[in-house]
Amino acid sequence: MSSNKTIIANGRFLVPGSLQPVLSGYMTIEDDLITYIGEDKPAAEEGALTVDGSRLLFMPGLVNTHGHAAMSLLRGYGDDMVLQSWLQEKMWPMEAKFTGDDVYWGSALSVLEMLKGGTTTFLDMYDHMDRVAEVTEQSGIRAVLMRGAIGLCPEDVQNQKLAEAVEFARNWHGKADGRITAMLSPHAPYTCPPDFFVKFVQAAHDLDLPMHTHMSETRHEVEQNVADYGLRPVAHLEKLGMFTRPSMIAHGVHLNDEEIEILAKYNVGVSHNPGSNLKLASGVARVPDLLRAGVKVSLGTDGAASNNNLDMFEEMRLAALIHKGVSGDPTAVPAPEALLMATEYGAASIYLSNVGRLAAGMKADFIAIDIDQPHLLPHSDLLSHAVYSASAKDVEHVWVNGKQVVKHGQCLTLDEEEVRRKAQETFESLLTR
Amino acid sequence: MSSNKTIIANGRFLVPGSLQPVLSGYMTIEDDLITYIGEDKPAAEEGALTVDGSRLLFMPGLVNTHGHAAMSLLRGYGDDMVLQSWLQEKMWPMEAKFTGDDVYWGSALSVLEMLKGGTTTFLDMYDHMDRVAEVTEQSGIRAVLMRGAIGLCPEDVQNQKLAEAVEFARNWHGKADGRITAMLSPHAPYTCPPDFFVKFVQAAHDLDLPMHTHMSETRHEVEQNVADYGLRPVAHLEKLGMFTRPSMIAHGVHLNDEEIEILAKYNVGVSHNPGSNLKLASGVARVPDLLRAGVKVSLGTDGAASNNNLDMFEEMRLAALIHKGVSGDPTAVPAPEALLMATEYGAASIYLSNVGRLAAGMKADFIAIDIDQPHLLPHSDLLSHAVYSASAKDVEHVWVNGKQVVKHGQCLTLDEEEVRRKAQETFESLLTR
Repeated sequence: MSSNKTIIANGRFLVPGSLQPVLSGYMTIEDDLITYIGEDKPAAEEGALTVDGSRLLFMPGLVNTHGHAAMSLLRGYGDDMVLQSWLQEKMWPMEAKFTGDDVYWGSALSVLEMLKGGTTTFLDMYDHMDRVAEVTEQSGIRAVLMRGAIGLCPEDVQNQKLAEAVEFARNWHGKADGRITAMLSPHAPYTCPPDFFVKFVQAAHDLDLPMHTHMSETRHEVEQNVADYGLRPVAHLEKLGMFTRPSMIAHGVHLNDEEIEILAKYNVGVSHNPGSNLKLASGVARVPDLLRAGVKVSLGTDGAASNNNLDMFEEMRLAALIHKGVSGDPTAVPAPEALLMATEYGAASIYLSNVGRLAAGMKADFIAIDIDQPHLLPHSDLLSHAVYSASAKDVEHVWVNGKQVVKHGQCLTLDEEEVRRKAQETFESLLTR
Repeated sequence: MSSNKTIIANGRFLVPGSLQPVLSGYMTIEDDLITYIGEDKPAAEEGALTVDGSRLLFMPGLVNTHGHAAMSLLRGYGDDMVLQSWLQEKMWPMEAKFTGDDVYWGSALSVLEMLKGGTTTFLDMYDHMDRVAEVTEQSGIRAVLMRGAIGLCPEDVQNQKLAEAVEFARNWHGKADGRITAMLSPHAPYTCPPDFFVKFVQAAHDLDLPMHTHMSETRHEVEQNVADYGLRPVAHLEKLGMFTRPSMIAHGVHLNDEEIEILAKYNVGVSHNPGSNLKLASGVARVPDLLRAGVKVSLGTDGAASNNNLDMFEEMRLAALIHKGVSGDPTAVPAPEALLMATEYGAASIYLSNVGRLAAGMKADFIAIDIDQPHLLPHSDLLSHAVYSASAKDVEHVWVNGKQVVKHGQCLTLDEEEVRRKAQETFESLLTR
């Protein structure tokens, strides 16, 4: 008998990529692991908690592979603007005022939104990362965290940022019952001079950690890279040694065939951020080509200021829709592939081998959506419904690392009322500081 | 004193296109009309119902200008397929089996989804329209209904369809307290021979009703029109006299400059269906060009089988996002314009002069969304939040024609449990018939 055993009974379970992508049956969770999933009913066991899954669809928790959680404080603060004005007039002046407390409440707001919306793992690249780790620890979410460093500053400031990034990774990698892992993250090739970038590569080797950076989000940035270094960004990062580490880049909107080949060769992941790329008019990434080349493509929301929400169902749907519309091929990015991008490919991209899939031996990070609703009927193809019809607000329950963190839509780990109030107060205070 | 008077107190109200697009204040509803909206508190009145609007954002009800409600029965029944296979192997064989009862339950499922999601007016082009009118009457929604007619059939069948369309319009136009209006709707230039199409134009003149048709959804269809008639679709419909009637066309994905000019000249509306156009890989309509030319562009979901939901917030967001991403202009289709497309422009496109706007004298068709939620905080720009962050599931209350039809997310007019059960049973029965 185990007091930490839960049996989901009579549920439907999404297992994309398998022969039976919608499985009807049972799933057993013991401590932090899934120990069984299948059609046969497991033996009844005294002390085990049974959850009735009959009105629910169970899915792997969604994995958000690129974002800046604290930027939810700037949601709606600047929209429909040209990128440089948006950054220079709106985002940067406000972000320059952010204190550790601001980052704490902005991140708490985002984590609350993500957990309630079915995201069980998120990547965060920002500043004041100790405070993001604090929110992660308290909320029960899983996170891959990194101090993002912009190197357009004097060398002593650069070194200070690198030291912070290294110290953060040393302090937090593997913490919070293993829910926190770290990566190293120079912000982007256009904001980090080559020698600074190389120091991050060295640190990643020293710490044996993967790397993450923004790359080729805009056409201008690619042209600038060629002008500055005589190389397109992929070749530039290859030359700087980044791909000698397990790596993932965010955006990758403007890539040529040769660059796609290099990414595939080094098994570099690409975090596709369709909502943000559309809203900022960066363009439409070559996702079908990347997938065909064997590149790991995952999904990210980016910060809420350029999205403007953290609904990973919406990113899945955008990924499944826009590449059809733009390519003219209605079979591009079919629903199972979009779901894999939001789950299994996401986990692989941030170098977590034990989440992103419902299978025995995997960490118990999973969600349940209420399928007895008008927009999810009839029950023709529940995998299709998860991708094409559902939204964050359909999430009923969420478990991370075997622990239930959202129950009937309510977060069990954070004080929602307090987080909402503090986020609003923080925004108002930032306006007047 | 009036027993049919409601005062919304301390609310925030979206008035896109005005000097103060987010107004804080009060709104009064008497019977079916908005009689006051403004910052000043109206005089207290005995017998008037007061609604506390302090956690709510009030908006005009959303207007869905193109769809086939009963097709929700086929949601998820065929996805990620080439258009012709999807139609010939999946949609048409199932639709051929649809009885009046099937259309009733499919339409009820859609109307339930739409009302709960903030859509207060929908256009429906289908068959068995008496049953759609029945759902409209019972549910309290507003609708513009029409018997869509495909003319690829013998002349006696054509005439029968035309007679049904005319009879339906005669019987139902202006009914259900004026909530039902009618249009005349030959299905499309590629499915209606010119002489059949012309009969509809004549009938529209006789009945003094506007017209609606599908047009230029796919590139192939445009090429076929040129091959068959020596004209692109807009010139073809102009020649057939359609634009001598108030008209609206659905899709309009493939238009050249000259066609856009003709549509503007005749004040023909275009129902933009971004979700469906992307999913079926039809392409991306030239919405910024249409708007610049002064064409009324509204938003439609199309049927749920090609969407796969009826969330008009999602269509607003897609309209605001994809045209930025594809054009490279981040100022394309800004949030206020997307909201106007989903409300005021929508109403104008289906020739309803008294809905789509919160203003004294307009019909009281409005919705309230719960803005005290993580993904709608901080309260920086509530109009931006409505377009970029909200979804159908954020809708808390809905009023149509002055009557509350959704309260705290529950539909007051239809038996939701029965509709859900019947929709599922109908789908299962269709599979085995």
